[in-house]
Amino acid sequence: MRVYLDNNATTMLDPLAYEAMKPFMEEKYGNPNSLHDYGSETHPALKEAMDALYEGINARDEDDIVITSCATESINWVLKGVYYDLIHTGKKSKIITSEVEHPAVIATCGFLESLGVKVVYLPVNSNGVVEVKSLEEAIDEDTALVSIMCANNETGMLFPIKEMAKIAHDHGALFHTDAVQSVGKIPVDVQDTNVDFLNFSAHKFHGPKGIGGLYIKDSMPLTSLLHGGEQMGGRRSGTLNVAGIVGMGTALKNAIAHFDEEKNVRILRDKLEDALLEIEDVFVVGEKDQRVPNTILASVKGIEGEAMLWDLNKNGIAASTGSACASEDLESNPVMEAIGAEADLAHTALRLSLSRFTTQEEIDYTIKVINNAVKRLRAISSTYSYAPDWHKSRL
Amino acid sequence: MRVYLDNNATTMLDPLAYEAMKPFMEEKYGNPNSLHDYGSETHPALKEAMDALYEGINARDEDDIVITSCATESINWVLKGVYYDLIHTGKKSKIITSEVEHPAVIATCGFLESLGVKVVYLPVNSNGVVEVKSLEEAIDEDTALVSIMCANNETGMLFPIKEMAKIAHDHGALFHTDAVQSVGKIPVDVQDTNVDFLNFSAHKFHGPKGIGGLYIKDSMPLTSLLHGGEQMGGRRSGTLNVAGIVGMGTALKNAIAHFDEEKNVRILRDKLEDALLEIEDVFVVGEKDQRVPNTILASVKGIEGEAMLWDLNKNGIAASTGSACASEDLESNPVMEAIGAEADLAHTALRLSLSRFTTQEEIDYTIKVINNAVKRLRAISSTYSYAPDWHKSRL
Repeated sequence: MRVYLDNNATTMLDPLAYEAMKPFMEEKYGNPNSLHDYGSETHPALKEAMDALYEGINARDEDDIVITSCATESINWVLKGVYYDLIHTGKKSKIITSEVEHPAVIATCGFLESLGVKVVYLPVNSNGVVEVKSLEEAIDEDTALVSIMCANNETGMLFPIKEMAKIAHDHGALFHTDAVQSVGKIPVDVQDTNVDFLNFSAHKFHGPKGIGGLYIKDSMPLTSLLHGGEQMGGRRSGTLNVAGIVGMGTALKNAIAHFDEEKNVRILRDKLEDALLEIEDVFVVGEKDQRVPNTILASVKGIEGEAMLWDLNKNGIAASTGSACASEDLESNPVMEAIGAEADLAHTALRLSLSRFTTQEEIDYTIKVINNAVKRLRAISSTYSYAPDWHKSRL
Repeated sequence: MRVYLDNNATTMLDPLAYEAMKPFMEEKYGNPNSLHDYGSETHPALKEAMDALYEGINARDEDDIVITSCATESINWVLKGVYYDLIHTGKKSKIITSEVEHPAVIATCGFLESLGVKVVYLPVNSNGVVEVKSLEEAIDEDTALVSIMCANNETGMLFPIKEMAKIAHDHGALFHTDAVQSVGKIPVDVQDTNVDFLNFSAHKFHGPKGIGGLYIKDSMPLTSLLHGGEQMGGRRSGTLNVAGIVGMGTALKNAIAHFDEEKNVRILRDKLEDALLEIEDVFVVGEKDQRVPNTILASVKGIEGEAMLWDLNKNGIAASTGSACASEDLESNPVMEAIGAEADLAHTALRLSLSRFTTQEEIDYTIKVINNAVKRLRAISSTYSYAPDWHKSRL
């Protein structure tokens, strides 16, 4: 049996999204910006896709949703655009973010620091959540932008975006949220949260890879990251990836239409989590109801995350020790480090992320495999037998 | 009959490239950076695609080819990366490019000018070609980068890249070429031309939209445009678009394997061009043998380019007045303006661009339709009847 439980890294392409894409990889291959039928025959599907995106995050007509190639591009755009517009011009000097943002935010902030920008990285509490009060303490009138993710990619924990957006605005700062792990998993409402920028990525909600978007409130000006032609109103140049856009729109529409099934995701996730917690010396980061419904970040004491992955993979189960974007270096889980778990514990991270395509049968099978793996791996663990109470003592 | 003669704007997806992509839009949807089989099962096809790209432009193992989302991204990356590495650091101060580059180069240079960079825009001669001597006159030791396209998107004219790269290097400058209109159409050899950076885009050679690449000689350092995770060795972050990369590699391999058929493209292009030139008061920019084999930029005196497009489109033929990247504003052809054609003439531009999928039958049909269109449109032209010798007088 093959079981895919790494949906926070990427997802299966929704078969209906794939169907919707096909005409644009077959006969309808024109460039939408061309002045002939090959161009214009792409327009109805593009319009439908864009409508689905606007509806999907409750954007208004006066807002912009600009298509990009991925979340990383959207994030680089917001941070560097705000840098050029507000910091390079001398109006403001500071960006506030958190220690547990996606590498796209952290690395871009590092680059901006090299240009002289002051960046404050807010810590997380023991649940892995950035607290409102830490933003209140850090923010001042020199803050150009606050960038805090909507849900954490490792833990699935939801952050208090709405409250933080208000604090940012109260201090004259803009607010950006990386909503890659929320859009398509839970209802996302840009009007209710009142964020200025919000990015998403199709391949996290069963759309194709290589396509994403950036919501920009009130279509406000933002220096482009990709200068060039007149595509996307000149905001993001480059020939439109028609199939990608159509696939993304269809995928988001379907994801939202299946939110009821996401309840099923929650039921299956909770079943898996409860089974994990029955194993001795396993803990899971954060309360279930404060997370997106598909994610578990567990620590299985005495078992290296990579050893567990190996065992699961041998049995056809795909999981992760954390973000795939950082997985080429076998380091400890950075979010667990930020939470403050001891280094040894951070090496035991196991992330299991479900989707609406995950089945009951797959979860039952996974529970069985994990139980066997824990027994086998702890029997040969160099740390577990020596320190049976080591983990409990820190709780 | 439908005839697609706008292949410089975008191309039909090669059916074999599409076939190669399918498994990665179906069962093989893993993230290549994941540590499980869903991830690793994408690796052989990715390796094969990357090998095809290296082979396709004759890159060496010690060079980098970094996957990007499009030519516009690659171009922004080179220009802004060199800005950060050499100009922002105070080592150099100048960039040299031409007046007829793609909007991605022109607009990015405009942005860099706003940051204080000195940009020199070399003119073109009456054939639409940037001359070597104009670079010799403009270059000095303060020049960080010379960016000159390989073949012009409007005219198809080939530029003397190899000579210009040598001049750049002789003055301690780096050399970049936008090879979007060359790669897949004519042999491109980065070792022979000795360029430092070269960008290409899959959808111009029958690959999918939304994917491109940047060649970087000797894998030299270049400040990233997209900061983030460890993908592409940390040079270009963002989840790999597996289907896109596989499609691009397959498409390039097939394009090169069909270079013999490109001779057929040349034969059909020449046939179409000869038929156009038989019409009174039509001229074509540049000598045939100094162009990529698929492109014609014609001026049909007395007929607005958009009127001609409309007539062709009504008859199922897709053509262009110039770059699709600038086509939303119905202005005169900027390359014709740079060549020095009178404004009225620049409004008569008609670009016809073939591909290896273009047939003899389609060209015969197109010749017939254009002849009829010219008769009909000149009969109602407000300028043609009044000034029958107006065009000839400028030659």
